[in-house]
Amino acid sequence: MITIFSEDHRLQDGKAELIDGKLVPCFEMPKRAEIVRARVAEVGLGDIEGPLHFGREPLLRVHKPEFVSFLETAWDEWKREHGDYDALPLNWLAPGMRRKLPERIDGKMGYFSFDAGTPITAGTWRAITASANVALTGQARVAKGERAVFALCRPPGHHAGSDFYGGYCFFNNAAIAAQAFRDSGAKKVAVLDVDYHHGNGTQEIFYSRGDVFFASLHGHPAQEYPYFLGYEDETGEGAGEGCNANYPLRWGTGWDDYETALDDAIAKTRRFKPDALVISLGVDTFRQDPISKFKLDSPDYLQIGRKIAALKLPTLFVMEGGYAVEEIGINAVNVLTGFEEA
Amino acid sequence: MITIFSEDHRLQDGKAELIDGKLVPCFEMPKRAEIVRARVAEVGLGDIEGPLHFGREPLLRVHKPEFVSFLETAWDEWKREHGDYDALPLNWLAPGMRRKLPERIDGKMGYFSFDAGTPITAGTWRAITASANVALTGQARVAKGERAVFALCRPPGHHAGSDFYGGYCFFNNAAIAAQAFRDSGAKKVAVLDVDYHHGNGTQEIFYSRGDVFFASLHGHPAQEYPYFLGYEDETGEGAGEGCNANYPLRWGTGWDDYETALDDAIAKTRRFKPDALVISLGVDTFRQDPISKFKLDSPDYLQIGRKIAALKLPTLFVMEGGYAVEEIGINAVNVLTGFEEA
Repeated sequence: MITIFSEDHRLQDGKAELIDGKLVPCFEMPKRAEIVRARVAEVGLGDIEGPLHFGREPLLRVHKPEFVSFLETAWDEWKREHGDYDALPLNWLAPGMRRKLPERIDGKMGYFSFDAGTPITAGTWRAITASANVALTGQARVAKGERAVFALCRPPGHHAGSDFYGGYCFFNNAAIAAQAFRDSGAKKVAVLDVDYHHGNGTQEIFYSRGDVFFASLHGHPAQEYPYFLGYEDETGEGAGEGCNANYPLRWGTGWDDYETALDDAIAKTRRFKPDALVISLGVDTFRQDPISKFKLDSPDYLQIGRKIAALKLPTLFVMEGGYAVEEIGINAVNVLTGFEEA
Repeated sequence: MITIFSEDHRLQDGKAELIDGKLVPCFEMPKRAEIVRARVAEVGLGDIEGPLHFGREPLLRVHKPEFVSFLETAWDEWKREHGDYDALPLNWLAPGMRRKLPERIDGKMGYFSFDAGTPITAGTWRAITASANVALTGQARVAKGERAVFALCRPPGHHAGSDFYGGYCFFNNAAIAAQAFRDSGAKKVAVLDVDYHHGNGTQEIFYSRGDVFFASLHGHPAQEYPYFLGYEDETGEGAGEGCNANYPLRWGTGWDDYETALDDAIAKTRRFKPDALVISLGVDTFRQDPISKFKLDSPDYLQIGRKIAALKLPTLFVMEGGYAVEEIGINAVNVLTGFEEA
């Protein structure tokens, strides 16, 4: 399996995120991607290639123009007003407030974001466009006939919506790739999200569309970030009714319950009869993840890969979360080797 | 003029708020109220008395029960999960997310809050109930015949809505007092908010009511916190249509433009023919305020007091913001002495 990777991911190196009432070093750090890349090389998964450049157009297929423009200039605007220190928003919309874009950068950040854990830095724009290009390069390779490709994206993407960022995510790499499959001829595409956190951005982007099926297995929103989406009764709307499937799972979920949910998600994916498959590949379901509460073990990720392979679809793996840094390589690559062995 | 004051305000002594991408010492600090109290004594404004205790009932007249219960137990829930360090939320609702109350404290805080600058601490519940009692005690004295009373509330309140906190505010003292006027016989009540920031909470609480008129002069939401409310076209709805008046003013506004807006707000208040008046008294319109951008001078506050006095209404002054700590006493008390001299 080919891996697509860009060194530019390192340009997103935030100092701190707000958690537990404190600013602590970002869990989403450059080392994550480096360890996955090293593991890819170690097991000899296949070639590691750099991304091509696709420009703005594919981003604008799923993100609103004002959001893309905001991300492009946010750091400069912030720096002009606040100096050379990572940008975090300070307030958001209370119920009944109006989503009207303010003029100042603090207001704009409140408008476009939903947490205080996703710093915009000097290198953010280059890192996030590179990450999207990694996904798009992988997609193009699959569209041209590869059975499967690994897009080693960083920063991750699945929390980012049509016009909001958060959860370490800015551009929704998986959604951008799914849309690119549609635009390169696939009639129907499925996105399966196995990250520990609900893929709220992907759901938001495709919620009313019948051509993209989205399934997510994740920590129950009553217990877990991002808290305000990811319930079972969210099944899509309009043309998208029936094309959204959430599997909220409680703290402490181990392989047995996870497998049951995964099998159901895969069965639903199969029934949708997609022409291509995008996997939002997070491995923060691992039992030692520092911010998550599932109990999966490293061999379980081989199983996940085998089950995905059984769908026999052109498949793009897009890297998302996973914060047990030392094991992230083993677990992520286990999914890929499980897939290849199947 | 009698001043009502509680030492319990000191129990709200947050360590830090998120601003400029950093956690910095809270601008909203105990010293603020102490300096105002010292100035009240220095000029011999009148007696300083402690608050009576009014219990939950008057809080529940403007705040939702689940919000009051949340504030009562939030610190204990936080401490159980995160330890003995100030509680700040980490994420909020993105567009399209569902306002469904999560089980865990981090999720609950995201549900009920709109910024990362309003820490919940061990002493918050006692401080905010004391602050509400200060406002209610002042209101009761006015209802019994005092021409005017100064409720030296801290923490402030005007950003707090029916079920959300933020902007250093938890209970909306001014709204609680305005409702108490209604409940003690006033047919119509006006709230005039001269704090630098929009009184978004007060607006939200009374927006569809015809019995409470709300006017606010404040930094323009395109430029200033809380950014997402406070525009001129917000005039009330339903029975409250025409009972809300916003005066968004641009950075650099000095006395001349401020006076024009204030005269208009006072004229509108007069036309409403209220039986009682509540003033949300912030003095962060001062030229040296560290987080605000108006250019009022200390003598201008005497003028504000005189203009309010000309309404010849039973009047409750409720302390809100003001972060130029050394001058907060002079400026706040200037409003009160201006009122008394008129």
